[in-house]
Amino acid sequence: MITSRHNPRFKRIRDAIREHADEIVLEGPKAVADAVASGWKPIEIVERDVDVSSELFDLLADTKSPQHTIGLFERPRAHATAILARRATVIVALDAVQDPGNVGTIVRLAAAFDAAGVLLLPGCADAFGPKAIRASVGAILNVPVAAVTARELLDCGLTLYAADAGGACVDPPSRDAVFVFGNEGAGVSDELARAAQPIAIPMSARVESLNVASSAAILLSRSFSLR
Amino acid sequence: MITSRHNPRFKRIRDAIREHADEIVLEGPKAVADAVASGWKPIEIVERDVDVSSELFDLLADTKSPQHTIGLFERPRAHATAILARRATVIVALDAVQDPGNVGTIVRLAAAFDAAGVLLLPGCADAFGPKAIRASVGAILNVPVAAVTARELLDCGLTLYAADAGGACVDPPSRDAVFVFGNEGAGVSDELARAAQPIAIPMSARVESLNVASSAAILLSRSFSLR
Repeated sequence: MITSRHNPRFKRIRDAIREHADEIVLEGPKAVADAVASGWKPIEIVERDVDVSSELFDLLADTKSPQHTIGLFERPRAHATAILARRATVIVALDAVQDPGNVGTIVRLAAAFDAAGVLLLPGCADAFGPKAIRASVGAILNVPVAAVTARELLDCGLTLYAADAGGACVDPPSRDAVFVFGNEGAGVSDELARAAQPIAIPMSARVESLNVASSAAILLSRSFSLR
Repeated sequence: MITSRHNPRFKRIRDAIREHADEIVLEGPKAVADAVASGWKPIEIVERDVDVSSELFDLLADTKSPQHTIGLFERPRAHATAILARRATVIVALDAVQDPGNVGTIVRLAAAFDAAGVLLLPGCADAFGPKAIRASVGAILNVPVAAVTARELLDCGLTLYAADAGGACVDPPSRDAVFVFGNEGAGVSDELARAAQPIAIPMSARVESLNVASSAAILLSRSFSLR
């Protein structure tokens, strides 16, 4: 049993929680088992009071009610080109969406409404960080997520759409399209906004805008229902 | 200028931030001005480095980038009976929605899609707490919010609807209806679920459910577009 915080295995898990670079962490027996079943590569799975002392385990556990199992995994790698080739449905691209809860919620929406994948432009929260994984409620396991550049999106040959109150109130496309959702404060960056078809969500004048995850829910749900 | 944390005015603001009972707090000059314009009753408005020393002000400020203005207000009071009488649109009822971010996001959606108001069943996060107010992005100023009991909802004479994967995939009503959204883990309580019409959101089998704010976004948006 690991009982020292200087133990290299303990430090490796702790670093993966903090940095979620090449190695990432899932909490909870169900999440860990589901990830293995989905083909994620486990490096180590530890249980509280069995492999790691309860005191040290509680230092690692991210949630208030620790789940007693932590899995250390290789970070899954998907490629933007593979996602952009899947045109029978729509693709989600996030442009500097900073809140990991929003990123995870949108990954969950992408799974719910059968998007081909989620592309992260620079400035986004990491979809494989603990908060984003928790907000995805398991959906991170079955949605390809990859980094992408604005240039790759502009050159991909698909029509880009961006939620924009100044756009047309039309039904969103159901395939052959990329939906770009922007930063919580600033929206979609100018370069992409200029290239994108603006699409308005009909709403009252009582608010100026919607939360980015709300916009994604509405457009992805509508696109799915038209498929 | 207030320079002591024992100053009763300082303590009153601090208590309102913590407890948000009869008195509540808004941060930021725009939010405070908008609230006064909306008819909220200010008790005191303080500025950093003018009315309160910067050191003490920073103890009060809830956000990481303090806004330099804090307003102490009487808590606005709305009544469930008044909201339930407004039948030209739909009403939102939240059943033990615990996350203040979800409550605030749904208040914002209620404003965006012209709901008559938001009713909070027991167990909900306070819509007037700092996190919920922030998530509402100003919408808390123009949406009536009131506490309600399950009994009042069951006796109100309006049809209740609850998002439920087992329900019919039909368009939601656009008026004369209460949409009940349930707890993040447990959903709508049995008593209300039994009385409500289940309404399914069409989605893939890749997820079991949606985040409560996502469900609200989809149903309220669709209801608004049919109005």
